[in-house]
Amino acid sequence: MKGNVIIGQSGGPTAVINASLAGVIKASWKEGIRRIYGMHYGIEGLLNEDIVDIEDYIVTSQDLSLLKRTPSAFLGTCRYKLPEIEGNEAVYEKIFDILDKKNIEFFLYNGGNDSMDTIKQLSDYAAAHNKKQKFMGIPKTIDNDLPLTDHCPGYGSAAKYIATSMKELIHDNESYGASKSTVLIVEIMGRHTGWLTASAALSKDIDCSGPDLIYLPEVVFDVEKFVNKVKDLARNKKSIVIAVSEGLKVEDGRFLCELGQSSEHVDAFGHKKLSGAAAYLAGVVTAETGLKSRYVEFSSLQRCAAHLASRCDNDEAYNVGFLAAKAAFNGETGKMVSIEVQSRDPYISSYDMFDIHEVANVERNVPKNWIINDGTYVSDEYLDYARPLINGMLNPYFAGGLPVHLTMMKKRKTK
Amino acid sequence: MKGNVIIGQSGGPTAVINASLAGVIKASWKEGIRRIYGMHYGIEGLLNEDIVDIEDYIVTSQDLSLLKRTPSAFLGTCRYKLPEIEGNEAVYEKIFDILDKKNIEFFLYNGGNDSMDTIKQLSDYAAAHNKKQKFMGIPKTIDNDLPLTDHCPGYGSAAKYIATSMKELIHDNESYGASKSTVLIVEIMGRHTGWLTASAALSKDIDCSGPDLIYLPEVVFDVEKFVNKVKDLARNKKSIVIAVSEGLKVEDGRFLCELGQSSEHVDAFGHKKLSGAAAYLAGVVTAETGLKSRYVEFSSLQRCAAHLASRCDNDEAYNVGFLAAKAAFNGETGKMVSIEVQSRDPYISSYDMFDIHEVANVERNVPKNWIINDGTYVSDEYLDYARPLINGMLNPYFAGGLPVHLTMMKKRKTK
Repeated sequence: MKGNVIIGQSGGPTAVINASLAGVIKASWKEGIRRIYGMHYGIEGLLNEDIVDIEDYIVTSQDLSLLKRTPSAFLGTCRYKLPEIEGNEAVYEKIFDILDKKNIEFFLYNGGNDSMDTIKQLSDYAAAHNKKQKFMGIPKTIDNDLPLTDHCPGYGSAAKYIATSMKELIHDNESYGASKSTVLIVEIMGRHTGWLTASAALSKDIDCSGPDLIYLPEVVFDVEKFVNKVKDLARNKKSIVIAVSEGLKVEDGRFLCELGQSSEHVDAFGHKKLSGAAAYLAGVVTAETGLKSRYVEFSSLQRCAAHLASRCDNDEAYNVGFLAAKAAFNGETGKMVSIEVQSRDPYISSYDMFDIHEVANVERNVPKNWIINDGTYVSDEYLDYARPLINGMLNPYFAGGLPVHLTMMKKRKTK
Repeated sequence: MKGNVIIGQSGGPTAVINASLAGVIKASWKEGIRRIYGMHYGIEGLLNEDIVDIEDYIVTSQDLSLLKRTPSAFLGTCRYKLPEIEGNEAVYEKIFDILDKKNIEFFLYNGGNDSMDTIKQLSDYAAAHNKKQKFMGIPKTIDNDLPLTDHCPGYGSAAKYIATSMKELIHDNESYGASKSTVLIVEIMGRHTGWLTASAALSKDIDCSGPDLIYLPEVVFDVEKFVNKVKDLARNKKSIVIAVSEGLKVEDGRFLCELGQSSEHVDAFGHKKLSGAAAYLAGVVTAETGLKSRYVEFSSLQRCAAHLASRCDNDEAYNVGFLAAKAAFNGETGKMVSIEVQSRDPYISSYDMFDIHEVANVERNVPKNWIINDGTYVSDEYLDYARPLINGMLNPYFAGGLPVHLTMMKKRKTK
């Protein structure tokens, strides 16, 4: 008889992170695993022995269907990186004691770079100390910056939300026929990589002119060049829409949002005010061109809009969860499941695995040659890459006009 | 043979403003009207003789279906209030000359308070000068602040977007189990009335705890009391979510967003920085309580998210457009179509008309007795009022994973 399973969610939530959880549960049911545990708030919760029994909340296939449609981390998440093994053996001993106590044999962790580091450390420790536990990583990040996998579950849904909202905002911005141009600057997540900001380009089609400029953090930002581009556009266009990454930096390495900050730039409470890149640039545009400007920040909306999740993304998130658990049951450990794409149009994908040491702590950027027009747009290669990932809808279940979600607010009556 | 029709869209766009346009077109087709004109950018466009022929873009029932699913003002909009008739007769003469030249007999205008004033002025002028034209108002505003109608087309869809996004954001905010509470402040539109902000309460259900506090502009805001409420909540709750109206004012009449402004509060370009109410309050929370805080602004997203439009709202927007045109064809003038509700559960509504003089320039607030808990929440009366308005989905047409819209980017090949 196999031991029990534990699954944890880690890092920023996504619209489909719970689909991977559903995949792990499904695989465990098929395998006849006795108990499926969840870490309440990731590895941080595990260290506090804050562990839930999945069976208290999820029993039927209907529960799984609803879980797949629930945004944010059902189990709760954390931002916690395990310390180096050397000198911190007590932390690791504690974790393995907790696992042994609950007869846990299979450890699944769903997250981005830092979470894959957790799998690396734990599987390294297990190998060195001859532990029975198997450790498998399940990729997840809206940032799409994990290496070796073609793309990351979570990215397609965030990109679909961004592209849809861009279409709607561009139409909105075009609806005013005022004499002066109106500049709308939209701020998109991605502190280090521009994958999410690039997805704004997907809005361009026969029914939408798309953003006029797109700025990724992979390219050093030049404020003066930017102002000149806006002035050029304003000669022929009433509505100007610009997508910018929150992570834009100027030559000297400072973030754009730091440029507006000065020692006087504090509020009534002496609290330093942080405005974002878009807010800063909207101010620059009006000051330098006299044009009307405003900004929109997609903020956390772009990572939790399950009502607009991509079907492709949701299916793949479910599948990587399922396959990671299945691989662990088959004896695999210290690996991350990845997605391979054979054909983008039609879209044909499959799954593989990589040694976790090749994945952990490596960040993948948007390729330089996909960034065109003097760093102000993305190429057709990007569009071909991203288009299949936003395809299809997993429609929410609605009640009273609103999407229904599965939460830990109420336990099921257990047997 | 009846004369021609002209329709204009005015004020801020909504997710369903084009459904009313579709209703006017449908009624005109049924009536056998020869030509249907559109004002390009509302009355401002009309004054510039910027008029489009609807037939160039919309010919089939399929076009109408797509139009109903298109956010923002298809014809373009304006914020323009006609001057008083006395002393400005030339403006009115010009408008009637343009209408006469195109043999326009029926004038439909779709908008909020200012737009109803346009209908009032034009119908008054027509009556005084014995003009043949009929003028009918079609209500539209996400703010829901028009009087006499039970509610305004546009409101239900914005409320559905807000309630859905609140559910998703609340789950997102709950997903971190950090030791300190996290305070999320969400800013919602509504400069003068709290109808939109109130809709955040709709998110509360068996699967969502809802916002903890809701602040409407109908009540004077007290910063100190607010801080104490947050401190109280933080004693028992990890995730605190607060909905605030952009129009919150303190005792002395200043907007919250003005409180953080000082002469030093300028950016590198000497441009005064305007932060919103939520940004200001997030700063206050961290400074006064030491809690982690962040803010989200729904910004224009809440008025253009057609992908999440309410079916009830879309149908009603279509119907008021249809009925306003039909009333004009029957000889009515100087009126606005309104919605009456016989029963809220089950929802049974009908339509009526009111003299435009009773409507124009009157603003309706959220009733004081619907605002409870010392001005920090809304009552069940509000929930009963709003629930039916967000019901049902008008699913977008999707292509390539994104909603398809009808736009003026390309003319149809006309016969």
